Amino acid sequence: MHEQIRDAIQQRREAYTELLKQWVQEPTLSGQEARYQHRIAELYRELGLDTDLWEIDIESLKGNPLFHCQRDTLAGSPNVVGTWKGTGGGRSLILNGHVDVVPEGDHAQWDQHPYSGQVIDGCLYGRGVTDMKGGNLSAYVAVATLKALGIRLKGDVILQSVIEEEAGGAGTLAALERGYTADAALIPEPTEQNLFPRQQGSRWFRLKVAGIKAHGGTRYEGVSALEKSVAVIATVQALEAQRNADLDDPLYAGVPIPLPINLGRIEGGDWPSSVPDEITLEGRIGVGPGETVAAAEQALRTAMAALADQDAWFAEHPVEVEFYGACWQPGGIDLDNPLVDKLSSAFERVHQRRPELQASPWGTDGGLLSQYGVPAMVFGPGITRLAHFPNEHIRLDDVFDVAEIMALTLIDWCELAE
Amino acid sequence: MHEQIRDAIQQRREAYTELLKQWVQEPTLSGQEARYQHRIAELYRELGLDTDLWEIDIESLKGNPLFHCQRDTLAGSPNVVGTWKGTGGGRSLILNGHVDVVPEGDHAQWDQHPYSGQVIDGCLYGRGVTDMKGGNLSAYVAVATLKALGIRLKGDVILQSVIEEEAGGAGTLAALERGYTADAALIPEPTEQNLFPRQQGSRWFRLKVAGIKAHGGTRYEGVSALEKSVAVIATVQALEAQRNADLDDPLYAGVPIPLPINLGRIEGGDWPSSVPDEITLEGRIGVGPGETVAAAEQALRTAMAALADQDAWFAEHPVEVEFYGACWQPGGIDLDNPLVDKLSSAFERVHQRRPELQASPWGTDGGLLSQYGVPAMVFGPGITRLAHFPNEHIRLDDVFDVAEIMALTLIDWCELAE
Repeated sequence: MHEQIRDAIQQRREAYTELLKQWVQEPTLSGQEARYQHRIAELYRELGLDTDLWEIDIESLKGNPLFHCQRDTLAGSPNVVGTWKGTGGGRSLILNGHVDVVPEGDHAQWDQHPYSGQVIDGCLYGRGVTDMKGGNLSAYVAVATLKALGIRLKGDVILQSVIEEEAGGAGTLAALERGYTADAALIPEPTEQNLFPRQQGSRWFRLKVAGIKAHGGTRYEGVSALEKSVAVIATVQALEAQRNADLDDPLYAGVPIPLPINLGRIEGGDWPSSVPDEITLEGRIGVGPGETVAAAEQALRTAMAALADQDAWFAEHPVEVEFYGACWQPGGIDLDNPLVDKLSSAFERVHQRRPELQASPWGTDGGLLSQYGVPAMVFGPGITRLAHFPNEHIRLDDVFDVAEIMALTLIDWCELAE
Repeated sequence: MHEQIRDAIQQRREAYTELLKQWVQEPTLSGQEARYQHRIAELYRELGLDTDLWEIDIESLKGNPLFHCQRDTLAGSPNVVGTWKGTGGGRSLILNGHVDVVPEGDHAQWDQHPYSGQVIDGCLYGRGVTDMKGGNLSAYVAVATLKALGIRLKGDVILQSVIEEEAGGAGTLAALERGYTADAALIPEPTEQNLFPRQQGSRWFRLKVAGIKAHGGTRYEGVSALEKSVAVIATVQALEAQRNADLDDPLYAGVPIPLPINLGRIEGGDWPSSVPDEITLEGRIGVGPGETVAAAEQALRTAMAALADQDAWFAEHPVEVEFYGACWQPGGIDLDNPLVDKLSSAFERVHQRRPELQASPWGTDGGLLSQYGVPAMVFGPGITRLAHFPNEHIRLDDVFDVAEIMALTLIDWCELAE
């Protein structure tokens, strides 16, 4: 049956590549997912899945402590779930993938148009292809192939095409609240086919640094919030160094910065010849697998408060610390959960070697699934370091290898129906 | 006659204060000057001045090397000039004041609403009152008082209410190009009644610092343009220190930073959990009275190029340096020009002491007037350190003292008609 699966995938490889190209050409930035999701629903229906496309009522999520979202409404950004109902008696599996992509940044840093979908030397290029439309295609191909071969499974397979992963997981949370749970979940985020049984959480924060406005020509009469921000940036760097020095999880061995604190945005001042009286910094702090989100928040608050010890300015004008928008729970799956072994075996049958197990340096929607009692494994074809990068691309061979591994895993996990 | 002038001013003090309050309550930010300027034109007409309110055709200024403006159009932002024609044979004087104010910044740093015009303990509060609506009132009151007393002068007095001083002087340039010149100009910018016979020029610049985008969770795969910006900020600070150490103009004695380089704005990055690949810094560099704008520009370019010596990153990704928007020419008036002595004598008659002469730490439209052969003195009632500050205010006594000094100076400079 393994050979049948491989042949079925390879025979349709050209059509699947064309499909991925079309997916990439749709810039599904946050708020721009509707047309894409309607296409996905159409594909699910063509496979004969019970297809559920729905608009998420943001109000119904607002009381949920796990809800983190920067948008005022999710209207126009539907979720899609396609359920392949099993015959009964087998384990169920969610194949979860997000459709939102991060902004493409400076076009000059891209060799092609960021949404070209161009194929060069066996790689398909474009924003979001590694994170994570390539992985989503693997999941789709795995199900499509089993269906095409007339295979029937005991357990349910639940394909999920969710929104808003990049900003805190409102899409996956909405799917969980709608009742979509399972015995486990597999998330094909970009792991380069390594297994990530443990995922780092993360939290967005905003720092406001105060100054006193003055005319630039007599700038010594004011206090530059930008000059004060230099000390804040140094403190963030020192906190990151300290938190990583304190870490001793062997799954993070070899990762240069296991728990990064990233400063992603800065903005402040309103006139070239005025002294800026406020600078805003926005970033994300990694939450260790053995740590709570609250503990990470406290560490940042403490470091900012300690600035008063090195500069009296901060005693009277403390840095305002706010946590907002996105929040990924740390999460994962126990190493003795049978999914770990079944996925590893499927991997070995395709690659003739055992996979590598690592802890993920970033959060995924697996944290939310874990919170709802659905153990989550992250495993996908994308190239980790290209996520959020210019010239993001994916090796097409990897996409189809993962599809093959997923199909084998589904058979093993959900079991063939008699 | 001095006493008559003083009495006439003091008798109408309440009405003039109410007028200044109304001026301050109009937030004449760049682009929002129309209603205010129409009121000024009405006041000029009521004084019997030849009143010229006109919309500036930006296209007609674009070929002028002294033209610096950030706006695409100046439509809706008229200039106003009111000419009090002399009987002939006397020296002419321009009384030049700008109507544009800088943004008020964070309202929380103001004790009152920024456009309240409230009077507390003899001071009137509001954005723009020191820079420079208070000074503009002094000039208006000087002319109104002489007219009310039936005085006639030989030389022309040209009241100018111009736009865009804060962004490079397009209003004054347009007035010069329309033919408004004179034997000298007096600009009541906030000098606290010191005489500024020499004015620093300045130039706006924009620095672009490059990085390489990456996912915040694997930020070590990218290069943070924000971290690189810290070195750029330090270099700007070092350049400022060096330029001021090199300066030996005695008129700048006692000024903490005679030639400041102000970093007024910063912005960069587009996502909290992405490594920022570009940071933009905007600021202004002071141009010394003995220096050209081009030389100051070159000093900044050289300092940015030298960053490559301390960090190889900058050798491959040099900081982009752009000069844009505003530019104030350095300028002034010779110390032996009779206006210096006549203004000093009028000051002495009002204050029973000689005034202080200083070099201005900031640019004014006097630089442009100087370029057109109109020597310019800066002297006004505003409080220097409050320009562009929260809680900007002015002492009303100073406004009326300066009106008195201006009226006396006009009589002495333009001469009484027989």
